[in-house]
Amino acid sequence: MTDLSAPPFASRHIGPSESEQLRMLEAVGFESVADLVAVAVPEAIRAKDRLKLPAAIGEAEAIAELRALAGRNRVLTSMIGLGYYDTVTPAVIRRSLLENPGWYTAYTPYQPEISQGRLEALLNFQTVVSDLTGLAVAGASLLDEATAAAEAMTLARRAGKSKSAVFVVDADAMPQTKAVLATRAEPLGITLVEHPLDGELPECFGVLVQYPGASGRLRDFRAVAAAAHEAGALVVAAADLLALTMVAAPGELGADIAIGSSQRFGVPFGFGGPHAAYMSVREGLQRQLPGRLVGVSVDVDGDPAYRLALQTREQHIRREKATSNICTAQVLLAVIAGMYAVYHGPEGLRGIAHRVHRYASALAAGLREAGLEVVHGEFFDTVLVRVPGKAAEVVAAAAGQGVNLWRAGDDHVSVACDEKTGAAEIAKVWAAFGLDRSDVDIEGAADALPAELARESAYLTHPVFHSHRSETAMLRYLRRLQDKDIALDRSMIPLGSCTMKLNATTEMEPITWPEFAAIHPYAPDDQAEGYLELIGTLEGWLAEVTGYDAVSIQPNAGSQGEFAGLLAIRAYHRANGDEGRDVCLIPSSAHGTNAASAVMAGMRVVVVACDSDGNVDLADLDAKIDKHRDALAAIMVTYPSTHGVYEETITEVCAKVHDAGGQVYVDGANLNALVGLAKPGEFGADVSHLNLHKTFCIPHGGGGPGVGPVAVRGHLAAFLPGHPLHNGTPVGPVSAAPYGSAGILPISWAYIRMMGSEGLTAATEQAILSANYLARRLAPHYPVLYTGRGGLVAHECIVDLRQITKETGVTVDDVAKRLIDYGFHAPTMSFPVAGTLMIEPTESEDLTELDRFVDALIAIRGEISKVASGDYDKTDNPLRNAPHTAESVSADEWGHPYSRSEAAYPLPSLREGKYWVPVRRIDQAYGDRNLVCSCPPLEAYED
Amino acid sequence: MTDLSAPPFASRHIGPSESEQLRMLEAVGFESVADLVAVAVPEAIRAKDRLKLPAAIGEAEAIAELRALAGRNRVLTSMIGLGYYDTVTPAVIRRSLLENPGWYTAYTPYQPEISQGRLEALLNFQTVVSDLTGLAVAGASLLDEATAAAEAMTLARRAGKSKSAVFVVDADAMPQTKAVLATRAEPLGITLVEHPLDGELPECFGVLVQYPGASGRLRDFRAVAAAAHEAGALVVAAADLLALTMVAAPGELGADIAIGSSQRFGVPFGFGGPHAAYMSVREGLQRQLPGRLVGVSVDVDGDPAYRLALQTREQHIRREKATSNICTAQVLLAVIAGMYAVYHGPEGLRGIAHRVHRYASALAAGLREAGLEVVHGEFFDTVLVRVPGKAAEVVAAAAGQGVNLWRAGDDHVSVACDEKTGAAEIAKVWAAFGLDRSDVDIEGAADALPAELARESAYLTHPVFHSHRSETAMLRYLRRLQDKDIALDRSMIPLGSCTMKLNATTEMEPITWPEFAAIHPYAPDDQAEGYLELIGTLEGWLAEVTGYDAVSIQPNAGSQGEFAGLLAIRAYHRANGDEGRDVCLIPSSAHGTNAASAVMAGMRVVVVACDSDGNVDLADLDAKIDKHRDALAAIMVTYPSTHGVYEETITEVCAKVHDAGGQVYVDGANLNALVGLAKPGEFGADVSHLNLHKTFCIPHGGGGPGVGPVAVRGHLAAFLPGHPLHNGTPVGPVSAAPYGSAGILPISWAYIRMMGSEGLTAATEQAILSANYLARRLAPHYPVLYTGRGGLVAHECIVDLRQITKETGVTVDDVAKRLIDYGFHAPTMSFPVAGTLMIEPTESEDLTELDRFVDALIAIRGEISKVASGDYDKTDNPLRNAPHTAESVSADEWGHPYSRSEAAYPLPSLREGKYWVPVRRIDQAYGDRNLVCSCPPLEAYED
Repeated sequence: MTDLSAPPFASRHIGPSESEQLRMLEAVGFESVADLVAVAVPEAIRAKDRLKLPAAIGEAEAIAELRALAGRNRVLTSMIGLGYYDTVTPAVIRRSLLENPGWYTAYTPYQPEISQGRLEALLNFQTVVSDLTGLAVAGASLLDEATAAAEAMTLARRAGKSKSAVFVVDADAMPQTKAVLATRAEPLGITLVEHPLDGELPECFGVLVQYPGASGRLRDFRAVAAAAHEAGALVVAAADLLALTMVAAPGELGADIAIGSSQRFGVPFGFGGPHAAYMSVREGLQRQLPGRLVGVSVDVDGDPAYRLALQTREQHIRREKATSNICTAQVLLAVIAGMYAVYHGPEGLRGIAHRVHRYASALAAGLREAGLEVVHGEFFDTVLVRVPGKAAEVVAAAAGQGVNLWRAGDDHVSVACDEKTGAAEIAKVWAAFGLDRSDVDIEGAADALPAELARESAYLTHPVFHSHRSETAMLRYLRRLQDKDIALDRSMIPLGSCTMKLNATTEMEPITWPEFAAIHPYAPDDQAEGYLELIGTLEGWLAEVTGYDAVSIQPNAGSQGEFAGLLAIRAYHRANGDEGRDVCLIPSSAHGTNAASAVMAGMRVVVVACDSDGNVDLADLDAKIDKHRDALAAIMVTYPSTHGVYEETITEVCAKVHDAGGQVYVDGANLNALVGLAKPGEFGADVSHLNLHKTFCIPHGGGGPGVGPVAVRGHLAAFLPGHPLHNGTPVGPVSAAPYGSAGILPISWAYIRMMGSEGLTAATEQAILSANYLARRLAPHYPVLYTGRGGLVAHECIVDLRQITKETGVTVDDVAKRLIDYGFHAPTMSFPVAGTLMIEPTESEDLTELDRFVDALIAIRGEISKVASGDYDKTDNPLRNAPHTAESVSADEWGHPYSRSEAAYPLPSLREGKYWVPVRRIDQAYGDRNLVCSCPPLEAYED
Repeated sequence: MTDLSAPPFASRHIGPSESEQLRMLEAVGFESVADLVAVAVPEAIRAKDRLKLPAAIGEAEAIAELRALAGRNRVLTSMIGLGYYDTVTPAVIRRSLLENPGWYTAYTPYQPEISQGRLEALLNFQTVVSDLTGLAVAGASLLDEATAAAEAMTLARRAGKSKSAVFVVDADAMPQTKAVLATRAEPLGITLVEHPLDGELPECFGVLVQYPGASGRLRDFRAVAAAAHEAGALVVAAADLLALTMVAAPGELGADIAIGSSQRFGVPFGFGGPHAAYMSVREGLQRQLPGRLVGVSVDVDGDPAYRLALQTREQHIRREKATSNICTAQVLLAVIAGMYAVYHGPEGLRGIAHRVHRYASALAAGLREAGLEVVHGEFFDTVLVRVPGKAAEVVAAAAGQGVNLWRAGDDHVSVACDEKTGAAEIAKVWAAFGLDRSDVDIEGAADALPAELARESAYLTHPVFHSHRSETAMLRYLRRLQDKDIALDRSMIPLGSCTMKLNATTEMEPITWPEFAAIHPYAPDDQAEGYLELIGTLEGWLAEVTGYDAVSIQPNAGSQGEFAGLLAIRAYHRANGDEGRDVCLIPSSAHGTNAASAVMAGMRVVVVACDSDGNVDLADLDAKIDKHRDALAAIMVTYPSTHGVYEETITEVCAKVHDAGGQVYVDGANLNALVGLAKPGEFGADVSHLNLHKTFCIPHGGGGPGVGPVAVRGHLAAFLPGHPLHNGTPVGPVSAAPYGSAGILPISWAYIRMMGSEGLTAATEQAILSANYLARRLAPHYPVLYTGRGGLVAHECIVDLRQITKETGVTVDDVAKRLIDYGFHAPTMSFPVAGTLMIEPTESEDLTELDRFVDALIAIRGEISKVASGDYDKTDNPLRNAPHTAESVSADEWGHPYSRSEAAYPLPSLREGKYWVPVRRIDQAYGDRNLVCSCPPLEAYED
């Protein structure tokens, strides 16, 4: 009987075909996947039932269902503002960047040689931020404006001289910023004081000024800054980048730190995100910057090259001493914002800002002429109108005209103009206020920018902001940068712990449909019914997959999910009167983020030892529990372990902690090894965060966006994050938007919908099989660490180079860089164990690609042997000199003792379609010693 | 006063900024563009008024208007069939191919070294066609099934032994095929005879069998083929590719030629097109194939390489001896169809076909059980039902259910199943026929495929059809091929006469919206209101731009537009009783297509001499008019001339021809030099065809699609092409679909809408300025041919290499191939004058890119000088050895007397992001001697 159904999506998502799978099973020594899984996965954790999910549907059907959901969102003109403004994404940027797998499937640029394209794009972003804010150094983006404000608060506390525990917040700050600051301040013992910033400042270590304010008010904060500085406090300005093209830069007014959103630089609303927040700091604070920072360095030939600067600050190294738990950025969105500035240039941006301001001015003039009270005389884009008792009526009337305004209490309505505002919109707003006129005189209205705030300093003077003004030029710039990088559209990215699987086109297509892209996060619920249903369904599916009872998709990164999960535990203990429970046990093998998150959640980190296989040392666990029994809040473990092994003892660990009154946090980083086979919520955990950008197919975007939902058992459900403009819960929001990065949730929705229970389970099984296949093929050539039962690994395997390095001098770095010459992104380096490579193939790679990768590693092993045997020079060999650019292998002089073809084409297959790395090995230390974090002058590139 | 409008689209479309424009004007010696144009463009032809077009709007506004138009199309389930079947375009193919500028902005692969990606993709297509049709050689696609049938008819006449003038057409052929055959047969003196193909065949030179028939009937045509062969006639099978995965191949049944559409292999309806038609022929006929043929050859290193085979057959060389006027293909669509087969593989395609057939069988069984008469017992996907007097009622009922059926007269309804058909659709169809059941038993229904037609031969056995089954693998295959090619997303393509301008993303986005993509060409008008308005508007705008009175957008290529224009002239003369007017004057400098089209339209070609500048020799024109005065039908001229010059005498030429009773045909190939400045319909012409894929921004797609509307003055309007299923006119259709390639018309619509009169005129002016700028900068280094008034050229310039070749041996080919090393696609080679390069920059290239191109040509001139001076060897030099692959410049042995860096990096700027050509110079002759036109076995690639 022929199968009459269309080929399931799972067969496209999962790389190996059935026959390939059989060959892999044979290599691993099993008859069936079921046999393999039965040995690999401990019986104790196995889920009893298959997942209760709707039956899988095909790609066309999924698109149809998503279109139906999209159809239940209604796109109105948004004039709500409050940190989110409508914007025109230039079509060339949408298609050739946001919708281009060459950009969105890339990983975080930890391997800088194969990331020069997106590093240049991020440097553009940093230059935009640094120039516009008038501060020396800008980072490569943060998660959202509100969390950026929280990061600025903690930065100010670390860096400032004041001993005060008070942080002053502008009463006119964005509501979501205030709320997230509150969530973040409380566990750290910071007292937040809301203040009008008129008159005297309380004693404090820092002040946050919203510039312009949430109410639209624009004011000169020089005096506030001076007073703060006098008191030893630092000044944070939350500033609007578009306004900054017309008004004085925060740095010029005395801000030490600027933060804000770059959303209105071409990034769609997405019902709240993802968008890139920014942070910049004055000279002297750059080494305190949280998150990532792109800097300029040189490669071994002395040519300029980009890479992440000051990486030693990163959390995976500093653990509980970390100053922030942030380990991702919003790269894709930062790149869009940067390209928006590249495409428009300073005149273009200023033109847009000018237009926005003129429309706002005309709007205000019209209202005043009609006798209405416009509250602030000085504003950029937002007009606050006093309509005693009538705010709801005005907002409703505007909605009737197809325009969303913001009801600021019963008596005020605020109206935010943006890039899309035109005379038609102004007339509609007037009508909502009862004016019957349509003569919008944008030239005639008086300017509402204070003269003393007029921007005089130049910005975006670098040629990159003046050279890509035609669509053709922009298209080619995007292509040129893209071509420098390795993303999933070229070859597998075998990064252990990062799960670089297929980001299917069908999953990606809906996110740029206007019905998903163009919804403001504070749009009324009845305009977002499709979103709300999608979110509810997705949360339900994620609960089913993980065995928990409730899920919040608000956290817009794994780090935020961790934080939210720990906050839930904290709140739960407090609600039970257990204020003293503040110890968080963390195994020594954990991700550094875990410890950083625990500290942020006000917990004390106690490290539990691991045995030589990276498993939790039960004896030490008992000892630590005994010691901290009354103070025990939680344990955080990763499962399968960070070593890629299903620990047999996990249920025992959970029981011990529970017995002592603690909660169990299972880090969901490795959920790709569990879905369909085991559920943390069933085998003993109380809370997990998931990484939708790992297991559930949201692309890494070159280093963000991520989504990190938090999932909890029933007793913690009441303590999931809330939102001030939405549902209130005892725990405040961890992200700016009520639903976090809602705009990309259709990706994970589509994945689950098209895979169904069988597909998801098959994916997990294949991921396990593929990892074990790699381990088996590599074992004769490299030691493979940390196998579990039956000598099997979970979904990733660790190749140990320590002995090789000792014997030959060839390092993990050498192998990683040499893999570039073979066309591959390196596996995860030196995590969780220094001197090793952790390889995660995922289920999406077919056997041909897996074999190609193994062949490369085996060939490299052969090269290492030549170093060992003396056939290759100890230092002048293809490994140490890797990667090799086309320029280097075609140089007129070739001074190396190995041949050009050994350098460039160590395997014959590389002669077809070889990836040419654009720079040679980058000198990390040079760049940190000579920190340059904005676009270097062109002369820097001269030979 | 600041300009408050958003930056106009024109500023993105037109490359040079205002300041760049001023620098270019200075170089050319003019103060303003107006001054330049006043000298360059003869006053006599200048348009008096600016174009009457709606004011330009921005990109966001244009998208909004297009969304509104799209919203007026209604997408119903299509079960109409008749050569167009719904299909699922795999999302990865849509996004990474159809929506990817790396694919769609490429030019025809005349420069094979930089076209290996799309040539491989076309070879896949040819292999699919050859395998499925069971015939030896398949071409790289034709325009549509109906014109392919016409080409097959003329091929049969040329190649067959019969002297008969009769071509027999299956009475069950598609209606559009019959109609186009009729249009094409009549001027050539071919008599079409429609015949049931049962019983005896009339004497004929060829027979066309539809397989399966338009009515769905599937029959074994072996006997028909045998009878035809006995009579010396050739057999053409118009076959459905999907059906061929299950039934015997045409070649196995005796067909000499197979033609058909590949639309249902993943290409959307697009309201009729574009789709790729195919043609394959048996051994012995391959040198007769019209259109393009990709073949395998070798490069100078002996490595396999693809290129267009048998190019000497092409029309630009054979002129009036041409056997067809086709000079394009449907490359982008053929590539999609080929990739669809690559992605599904033979089992996948067979699975789809099987499912389609099972649903059709179940549908028929249900109808029969209900007592309805299903006319044919043997069918593949289409069920013809007899419902005396009730056809309209059934069709209306189905439409009420959201399904379009086909009313085949008053008494029959036909229902075509396709890839998207499922049980729900079958139930709706049943309901329309009055059945109340939904139990679709697709397993149980009897098979309707004749046993003797069961397919037994294998197909798609090549590894390419078995290696890209996961989305990841497919994505990478597409990327790998794309990366081999130069398209507009990398660098300028300065092809004279081809107008490779920006294909803006905003223009491209709407074509894949379902409301434009998913409309069947025979959908009722009330489901296509948006399309009909868009088409009407576009035709009106094109009439305004050209100064004509009526336009038909039906011709789906320039060649078809030419043919339609000449048919209009012919019909006009006949309507006036001037049957004898059959002489078409064509200047010797004309495109070869002109002559070929004239012959197809039943005209005699008389060549008019040109002077040494390529201008029409007026004395010879007078002589030829005198000689043929009574027989004079028309003159065909290109304006500006093919030499890129505004001939001063054009109005005189027009007058002379009109005085003699002839009509004037102005070839619109060079319209990019006229828009907004001059209108052919005003300065004396009666008819033109336009190339929307040149002047109006439809991308070249790697060699198609094109759209070639025909525009006429009022007296010819009645003779524009009609369509049997639509409006009847005295002249039949020239393309299969009523509106030709309607699916891509939104592109040109958007371009005109966003440019407006000023923008279009500014584009023309910039194109003229850019060409003159290039000419001025190049003149000190190369002779520039054929300047007109003031030493100016029009929109392109010709660089003469003849003397250089004579003196140095360096040929046009050497320069063209060396340009690849500099990262550029070569200009047009040896047209219109052998030994020259014709350069057309278009308005879309900015000054940086123009200068980069000029710098490359100047550097090459320096290299030529080194050959002249003996500094470079006469034969072993960077020019003769160009292009240089990365492999060649990094080879362990370097035996050339010039350096590697001279080979690879002749300009320092090339060290940044160099394009690496995948093969070295290709041996054209080798491939023609050893013709291989389907995927070669993998062993061919071994060293």
